[in-house]
Amino acid sequence: MTIDKFLGIALPIIQAPMAGVQGSALAIAVSNAGGLGSLPCAMLGLDAMRNEMATIKAETGKPFNVNFFCHMPPTPDPAREAVWRAALAPYYKEYGIDPDSISAGPGRAPFSSEAADVLEEFKPAVVSFHFGLPSADLLARVKQWGAKVLASATTVEEARWLEAHGADAIIAQGFEAGGHRGIFLSEDLTTQVGTFALLPQIVREVRVPVIAAGGIADADGVAAAMALGAAGVQVGTAYLLCPESATSAVHRSALKSEAARHTAITNVFTGRPARGIVNRIIRELGPISNAAPAFPLATTAIAPLRAKAESQGTGDFSPLWSGQNASGCKEIPAAELTRALAALL
Amino acid sequence: MTIDKFLGIALPIIQAPMAGVQGSALAIAVSNAGGLGSLPCAMLGLDAMRNEMATIKAETGKPFNVNFFCHMPPTPDPAREAVWRAALAPYYKEYGIDPDSISAGPGRAPFSSEAADVLEEFKPAVVSFHFGLPSADLLARVKQWGAKVLASATTVEEARWLEAHGADAIIAQGFEAGGHRGIFLSEDLTTQVGTFALLPQIVREVRVPVIAAGGIADADGVAAAMALGAAGVQVGTAYLLCPESATSAVHRSALKSEAARHTAITNVFTGRPARGIVNRIIRELGPISNAAPAFPLATTAIAPLRAKAESQGTGDFSPLWSGQNASGCKEIPAAELTRALAALL
Repeated sequence: MTIDKFLGIALPIIQAPMAGVQGSALAIAVSNAGGLGSLPCAMLGLDAMRNEMATIKAETGKPFNVNFFCHMPPTPDPAREAVWRAALAPYYKEYGIDPDSISAGPGRAPFSSEAADVLEEFKPAVVSFHFGLPSADLLARVKQWGAKVLASATTVEEARWLEAHGADAIIAQGFEAGGHRGIFLSEDLTTQVGTFALLPQIVREVRVPVIAAGGIADADGVAAAMALGAAGVQVGTAYLLCPESATSAVHRSALKSEAARHTAITNVFTGRPARGIVNRIIRELGPISNAAPAFPLATTAIAPLRAKAESQGTGDFSPLWSGQNASGCKEIPAAELTRALAALL
Repeated sequence: MTIDKFLGIALPIIQAPMAGVQGSALAIAVSNAGGLGSLPCAMLGLDAMRNEMATIKAETGKPFNVNFFCHMPPTPDPAREAVWRAALAPYYKEYGIDPDSISAGPGRAPFSSEAADVLEEFKPAVVSFHFGLPSADLLARVKQWGAKVLASATTVEEARWLEAHGADAIIAQGFEAGGHRGIFLSEDLTTQVGTFALLPQIVREVRVPVIAAGGIADADGVAAAMALGAAGVQVGTAYLLCPESATSAVHRSALKSEAARHTAITNVFTGRPARGIVNRIIRELGPISNAAPAFPLATTAIAPLRAKAESQGTGDFSPLWSGQNASGCKEIPAAELTRALAALL
């Protein structure tokens, strides 16, 4: 069964939740166009979450997806933090930033019972998780109002685990995908598999529908994913230039440049591996740094550098999230892009 | 134009040249079935090359491909060699090998004017190169008898370079592919792109036909590659269990096991990045070791360990080359596999 039927939408196209670069506006546009719009909640407080969902409900009667991270919050490690700050010290000096002035940022919170309370007010048709699944009781709460639960797998082993623990559909997140890797059963990045290899192997191993993600940028890509057994696709990067996205100016400009041809999986922005366009900080401290504190603690120390650099028009310290195929990025309304992605189906 | 028409064969299926695990037998079977069989010459001396091509000519009248590496032979570096031997010392001890007894192995030679002399006797219809292209005069010699020249690109930049330097068709080698990465314009492995993202971007950038490689294991994979704009496909891993392949017993057994789910790009076997099933030596010294001598010099020191371990039935020190999708490996004749790959076209 393709996911349009499974999720009660018109087109088997899911707009990937992208925390930090989009909110309700993109989700509304995609859902109204017949795809599945997604609201990323990882960086939203409870009030913001409530406001965003209220806006979506007001603007569309169609199903939408609400996305959460479900990592274990780390124990702060002052020694590691000190090493990280030392690594960043030359940049603080260059930008005239007093490291003692940096306060902890909002970071990224995992799904919680408080978040479930807010969700329950809106009973979204679809809830998706990254980095595994929440605890059994939290998952049961979400399923109670009939929400379909999606979760990301980066290996066959993770797909089996997610199916066994209650995911209703699995997102096969290939190596090409932008943003945070969903990897959660291992820390070994050599386990990460390209979409072309990952997707058919997961399709063969699980009985739930499998959604392809990673490297899909246009109608040909959607057709190819379906040929490999996908029940639908999740597309992120291609939506980043749409007017409904909140993508920053430096991020938009990088996506439109030749620089977008070279991305890397890096942990320097958050402490967890995520794919973005290679920039100065990735080149000089990464792509993988042993000094970076555990997710999401690496974020705090880099935030003022990012802010200062962006105010000067450069993305040298910004997470320029992108998959390996930015060729589908177009400055067109998200509804138009959604329909174009489905054009060959 | 699809590559069957371009190369004068019946099916747009190229059997990937796989040095060390196959010779003329596999090439003959694939060419006779209507695909393009390939003879890997990187590890063959001139006489062996001549014998293998004579065998192919005797057994098939169909076009076949002859493949060469075209790396710059490295300058031996005794200091680096000593570091590498020291890293391997505990294993020599474990296996009772006298490190002073190890003589230089045959290694892997790049394409040369002597090899061109041998080629000229047989005038193969297709010649393919890995790690770039040979010098302009050598390339001109090959083209003189009308051979079509194929070469591997792992990035868009490499594809542009190959087209500009005379490749008649380009093999887009995705991150998923087994064996040696064709990468030649950079040493930065973060530049390596999954097939799903690499293929359509190369198709858009060059005018010559583009052949998809990496992660393609069955008819669905072939159909998906064609949907992404490929003019044909090159498949390696799926042929490794065919009776016509010379795949070793430990290699066959690894391919049939769950171990095949985890491959890595490693330089420990030859000094150049290549994808194989993760085994003891990759786990303990790799996947990437700064101690490994330049390609192909790393091979010599590891050869006796491989031989000893294989004689005891383990592949702990063997290059168990495989792509990320071994699910297409079947113990069936190569002709049958070739036809099955083309079943949906």
